[in-house]
This record gives sequence, C-alpha cells and structure tokens, in this order.
Amino acid sequence: MPISNLQIRMLRKLLQSGTEEKIAHAIEKIHPSDISLLFSELSPGELQRLINSLCLIAKAGATLRELPEFLLPDILEQIEDKKMAGILSRLDPSEALFFFEHLPEARSRHLLDFLPEWQKEKLIKLLLYPKNSAGSMMTSNYLIVRAEMTVEEALASLRSQPEVKGVFYIYVVDEAKQLNGVLSLRNLVLAAPHTKIREIMDPEVQAVLAVDDQEKAAQMVAQYNLLAVPVVNESHELLGAITVDDVIDIVKEEATEDIYNLAGLSEADRAATPIGVKVKKRLPWMVLNLFTAAMAASVVGFFQHSIEKFVALAVFMPIVAGMGGNGGTQSLTVITRAIALGELNFVKAYKAVLKEAANGLILGATCGVLIGLVGFLWKGNYILGAVLFLAMMLNLLMGGLVGALVPLSFRALKLDPAIGTSVLVTMCTDIFGFLSFLGLATLLLEYLV
Amino acid sequence: MPISNLQIRMLRKLLQSGTEEKIAHAIEKIHPSDISLLFSELSPGELQRLINSLCLIAKAGATLRELPEFLLPDILEQIEDKKMAGILSRLDPSEALFFFEHLPEARSRHLLDFLPEWQKEKLIKLLLYPKNSAGSMMTSNYLIVRAEMTVEEALASLRSQPEVKGVFYIYVVDEAKQLNGVLSLRNLVLAAPHTKIREIMDPEVQAVLAVDDQEKAAQMVAQYNLLAVPVVNESHELLGAITVDDVIDIVKEEATEDIYNLAGLSEADRAATPIGVKVKKRLPWMVLNLFTAAMAASVVGFFQHSIEKFVALAVFMPIVAGMGGNGGTQSLTVITRAIALGELNFVKAYKAVLKEAANGLILGATCGVLIGLVGFLWKGNYILGAVLFLAMMLNLLMGGLVGALVPLSFRALKLDPAIGTSVLVTMCTDIFGFLSFLGLATLLLEYLV
Repeated sequence: MPISNLQIRMLRKLLQSGTEEKIAHAIEKIHPSDISLLFSELSPGELQRLINSLCLIAKAGATLRELPEFLLPDILEQIEDKKMAGILSRLDPSEALFFFEHLPEARSRHLLDFLPEWQKEKLIKLLLYPKNSAGSMMTSNYLIVRAEMTVEEALASLRSQPEVKGVFYIYVVDEAKQLNGVLSLRNLVLAAPHTKIREIMDPEVQAVLAVDDQEKAAQMVAQYNLLAVPVVNESHELLGAITVDDVIDIVKEEATEDIYNLAGLSEADRAATPIGVKVKKRLPWMVLNLFTAAMAASVVGFFQHSIEKFVALAVFMPIVAGMGGNGGTQSLTVITRAIALGELNFVKAYKAVLKEAANGLILGATCGVLIGLVGFLWKGNYILGAVLFLAMMLNLLMGGLVGALVPLSFRALKLDPAIGTSVLVTMCTDIFGFLSFLGLATLLLEYLV
Repeated sequence: MPISNLQIRMLRKLLQSGTEEKIAHAIEKIHPSDISLLFSELSPGELQRLINSLCLIAKAGATLRELPEFLLPDILEQIEDKKMAGILSRLDPSEALFFFEHLPEARSRHLLDFLPEWQKEKLIKLLLYPKNSAGSMMTSNYLIVRAEMTVEEALASLRSQPEVKGVFYIYVVDEAKQLNGVLSLRNLVLAAPHTKIREIMDPEVQAVLAVDDQEKAAQMVAQYNLLAVPVVNESHELLGAITVDDVIDIVKEEATEDIYNLAGLSEADRAATPIGVKVKKRLPWMVLNLFTAAMAASVVGFFQHSIEKFVALAVFMPIVAGMGGNGGTQSLTVITRAIALGELNFVKAYKAVLKEAANGLILGATCGVLIGLVGFLWKGNYILGAVLFLAMMLNLLMGGLVGALVPLSFRALKLDPAIGTSVLVTMCTDIFGFLSFLGLATLLLEYLV
C-alpha cells in the first residue's frame, strides 16, 4: 500500500529519536520509492540514522536509487566512504553506475578501490559509455539460454542463474555470447520438455548498440510495445538490456527536456537547484533575449517621429507585437510536439504549415476586428482602426508561418526543433509586429493626427 | 527490423496496383506499428486494398490500433460496416473499445449489433467507464489462478487459458473473482511442483479502482517499477489490468497535455487538425490574451504625456516588459514541471519561491546593467540608464515571484498549474514592466527631457 502522510510524520518522529533497529523494523515492509520520501529536509543526524537503518535491511541502494537526481550529490556527500562502498558492493554494476554519475570524480576513483574486483572491472567498462547512451542505461535484468538446449535443460539452467529483479525476456546466445534470439518465459513454460530452444525462439530479435542514444532504445520499446530491448556491441555480443521501467523514466526525461527547451531552460535547473547555478544557466538565454528584444525595439526607434506625432501608437504597438508572439508560440508548440511524437510521418509538412498560416490569418482577422474597434471607438478615427486590423492580421499570419517553418527548418538542418526556436519565433513576430503596425501608421500618418 | 524508407516506397507502389494477396504477402512479416506508416495520404482505392490485405492476414485491428488518433475518424469512415464488424470481432473487447471511442455514436450503436453477444455485452460495460478512467484503459492481458491450487495445477491451468499478448503477472483470485494476490511466472516456474500458490503469492497486491483516473494507474506503475497494475471494482473483484505499454502512452499523453496547456492549446489540436477546428479551439485563448494585452496597454495609456515628452520611453518599454515575461515563463516552467514530477515532495515550496525570486533579482540586475548602459550611451543621460536598470531588475524579480507563486497557488486551489497560468504570469510582468519603467521615468521626467 502507498505510504500515507500520517505514516510519514510518524516515521519522521522515529528518525529523531528512535534506535536504528527500531527504524529498520518500521520501514522494512515499505517500498523503497515510498521510503525515499523521508529524505527531504533531514538533519545530518537523522540522515545518518536513516542510512544506517536502511543498511541493516539491505535497502539503502534501492532507496537512494529512487531519490530525485538533484538531491543525490548532497546526500551522497554525507555518507562515509566505507558505508558507501558497502552499499555499492551489493548492487548490480549498472545500478552502481547511477551513483558514480553523481559523485565527484576524485571520490569515484577512491570508492572504486573499495569494490570487489569483478564489480570494479565491470563498472570501469560501463563508465566508458557516454552519458545518455544505451550502454550507460543497460542493466543485467535478463536471463540467457543456449539455442541447442532443450526446454527442460533451459529451465534447469534458469534455476541456477542468479536472481534477477524482473524477468522481461530470455535471450538466446551462442558460445561467443552473440545474441541469436529471444523467447518469453511463457513460451518456455508452455513448450514440451524435449523441444529445442532453437525451435521456439524468435530469431528476429531487435537490439540497439551500446553507443546508440538511450532515446533510440526508448523509442523501440514504446513503438513495438516491448518489455525490454537487448544491448549489443558491434560484433553483436549481448552486453545488457534496457528494461521498460527505465524507458518510462527516459520518456519522462525527454518530455521535461522538450518543455524546458521551449523556455530556454537547461535540464539541470530544477526547483531545488542552488541560486548560483540557476543564474549561471539562465544568463545566456536572458542575454540572448535581451539582444533580440533590443533588435525589435530598434525598429520602434525608426518610428519615433510618428509616435511623437501620434502617441496612441505607443499604446497599441505592444498589443500587436505580443499577440503575434502568442500565436507563433502556439504554432511552434503544435509543430515541435508533432515532430517529437512522429506525427509528421502521417501528415505532409507543407500541409501543416498551410494550416498554421491559415489559422493565423483567420485568428488575426478576428482579433484585428476587435482591436480595430477599440482603436476606432477610443480615438474616433477609422484609419487607426483599419491600421490595427491590418497589422494584427498580418502579424498573426506571420506568427503561424514562422511558428511552423522555424521548427521544420531546424529539423531539416538536423537541429533540435525545441532548442532556441521560441526566441527566434518571438523575435520575428516582435519585429514584424512593430514594423507592420508602425509602418502602416507612418504611411497614413496624415489621416491619423 | 524496423522498416526502411525504401521499403515504404516499394510498398506504396504495390498498393497502387498489386493484388490484395500480393500486398498481404509483402506485409505479413512487418510489425503493425511499421505497417501503420503506410496509411498517410492514401487514395480511397489504396486504402481499401490495404485494409483488405490486412484482413487477409488478420492484422487489420492491430495495425489500425497503431495509427495516431487524429487519423482514425477519417480512416474508420472509409471502412464499410461489415468489414469493420469483422475486424472488431477479432479483438479483445478492451481493444475494440479504442475504436468505438473514435466512431460517431450512431455508427457505434449500429456496429454493436454485428458483434457476438459476449463481446457486445463486455463492450457495453466498458463503454460506461468515463474517458481516461482506469476502466476504459484496462485490458485482458493477464492470467489467473486460485490460491489453493498447487504449482503443478496452476501451470496446467495456464496452458488451458486463452493466449494473451504478454504475460505481465499472474493474479490469484477466489471463487467470487476477488483479487487475493499476485505472482510472476518466474515464481511459478522456480517453485516445487506441490507447493500451494498461497505460499508463493504476494498477498499485498496493489490495485486501482475502475473509476480511478488512468493517471493514478500510470503513476503506480512508474513509481513502483511494475509491469502492470490490476483494476478492481468496489468489492475488489478483478476486472482487468493496465499494462506498462499503455502506461508509456499515458505518460506521453500527459507530457503533451502539460506542454500544450502552457501554450493555451487544447489536446485535440494537432498538426493535421482541420483549420476550422483549430480556429475554434484557439480563439478563446487569443481573445483572453488580447484582453490582458489591452489591460497592460492601458497602463501605457496613463503615461502618454511622458512618452510625448520623451519618446525614447516607447523604444525601451517593450524590452522591460518582454524580459519580465521571459523570466516569468522560465520560473513558471520550472515550478509546473516540479509539481508534475513530484519534486516538491522533496523541496519546501517557499524555498523554491525564494530561489526563483532571488534568481530573478540577480538576472534582472545583470540585464539591467546592460540595458542601462545602452540607454546611457544612446541618449547620454545617466538618469535614463538608472531608470532602465531599476525597472528591469524589479520586473525580473516580479517575473520570478509570480512565475513561482501562480502555479503553486493554482495547485493549492486544486487547479491544474499548467492551465491558464502562462497568460496570468505574462499579464503581471507586462503590467508591472510598463508601470515600473514608465512610472519611474515620469517621476524623474524633468531629468530625462
């Protein structure tokens, strides 16, 4: 059962004063993911007691693994080396890798020496894969059999293999550890005892390379409804498997990345990130925006004379520019999401652009009538109304066009359509908004004043 | 192997002229998810041939299931009732339900009468669950055994149960179909033949109610790394299971929803959506934005006198307002994402607000110095520089504050922190940007002119 708020409060009290044995007993039956909720805002003493209790019931690794990544560095720092090594040595190397990715390099090197030789060796190999590669995400949660085994022999062999957390598939390998096929435990259980594995396995097993991006593995699992995808090296040797539970994390991560990129945020910038880091990460984006805003403002500079003569222009110009930005952002969002979800495999890109443009034109005409009426009623000048109508319509058309074209061009140039496109789109709508509104107004200035 | 572009082109050619038998043979070994790629931009004749070929190899249901939802209504419309009923009758009721959700109501009722009685009955029950409820997402992809069976009996019983697509878990039920426990196939295979199921099952099985939101099931699967979660009714009777492959779809859908909400888009507004629908869905958002933009512009209206006297104010004012909007959007994105991912279980909300505010203040001061320098150098007036510096700093502080406080307040009020918050935040930064910059400038107007 999921943990209740009352339970959390009681456990927090126990952490303040209880013995480690008592705490261990209290949390023994709770899922690591729920225990992890206790980790926020602990005093150093409470943290030590909690870690020690978790070690008593051999749940420290699994629980720390459930913490949000931004909390890890701080917490790991407070666990002394010997204890940390004890926790790591109980983990599968692929799980241990996760912690090494959140430790300072010097400490990582130091901790490696505490580990058993076989684990150290495997970990060093895993550490060589680039971050976010399939190799860095793979686990040992799979079972292997040989093609020439009978079903009976395979079942016996499985019983002798080390306990793995979940059995997703059974992979068939040859003497060279090359991946030859796949079968499910159900295939095995339902087959007659003397059937050869070769007869019941699926030889067309899809795999990813260890150096491939983790996203490729995630896409494969999601698209073909798999529970795991095997990871191989160039000579098709089985190295590990990426399992569906990790794929869910990857999908969430990619979604956060897309949302973040549209706002110019970097992935590591979370609610709890220290202010100094936030400032450093966001400053380039803000300066870039300042620069594009200044460029748009310089357009206004060209029309100072018109504004001086008819100051109502200054009141209306941010409305025209801002509305174009809103429309452009909507089109940008629809198209970047369509790219991310593969929808453009089913729709021709030029049709999508035309739809966004037409939508912009229609919305622009509608909003143009509204704002034009406001302008007319306020100043009693129908030319002002007409200028507002035209500029609004044109700028929302522009928003639809660039909102669709910019991400599609980025994709064509093999750039991420979510990175930097929002600032480009708003720059276009700002500049064009000021230009169309103030330009039209200047042309018709004699009728306005 | 995933399908190549060359294969797609060749299959498209075959669709133009080949016989249905030839087409069926060509696509027989291709995964439904890859076949679905053929469905874009087909002529009615090609579509008919493709559907008929898929029916020949009993893959029509599985392939149509892989299409993006926005394509379905159009394609389903072109399949005649008898054929459609044939496709539906081969599907598990939970799969058939998916198609009924994309058919006009009259046709749904009509098609139901073509189906076998047992399927019709089950479907009608499923159709009663609200959209996006666990009940509407559950499948029959699970196996059941009884607690008093031995392992040997259970294995024999599994062999006699209908083939299911993937075995995620084996559920233990009693005579009343009540859910009593869960075990994995591996538990079963590795246990001694005469062990009772009761001894090896996990009685603490977590379930969701059929009327619960699908998101609850998805969260459970993601948080506890499950492969499926059982769905029960109020009397704990097992009704179905939500499997991890569907959870991946739910997670993607939720991410799209969050991204869309921030841009004021409705879920059904995709790249291929007809223009009329797009316009209708986006108009309210644009009118709302027009209204808030007009409110902000009315602030400018109060300061027309100052602008007339010193027109450079009109050049700088959109920069100050726009930068506040950018900063506010960043803070809003960080906080809404933190809420969606549950990060605020680990960070106190007031700390997150203080961090965003402090970050806004520092970035505002930095950008303020830059824009202040530009103002000073352009007009040779250090008071203009000082006003720009102050207004920029204050407005970015404002952006950080409202960007964090608005979504947190929405959450406290049990509203979705991604819906409507972006327009509220930009309205605040627009109004406050104009007010602070033009207000300060008016106070110091005698030193500016």
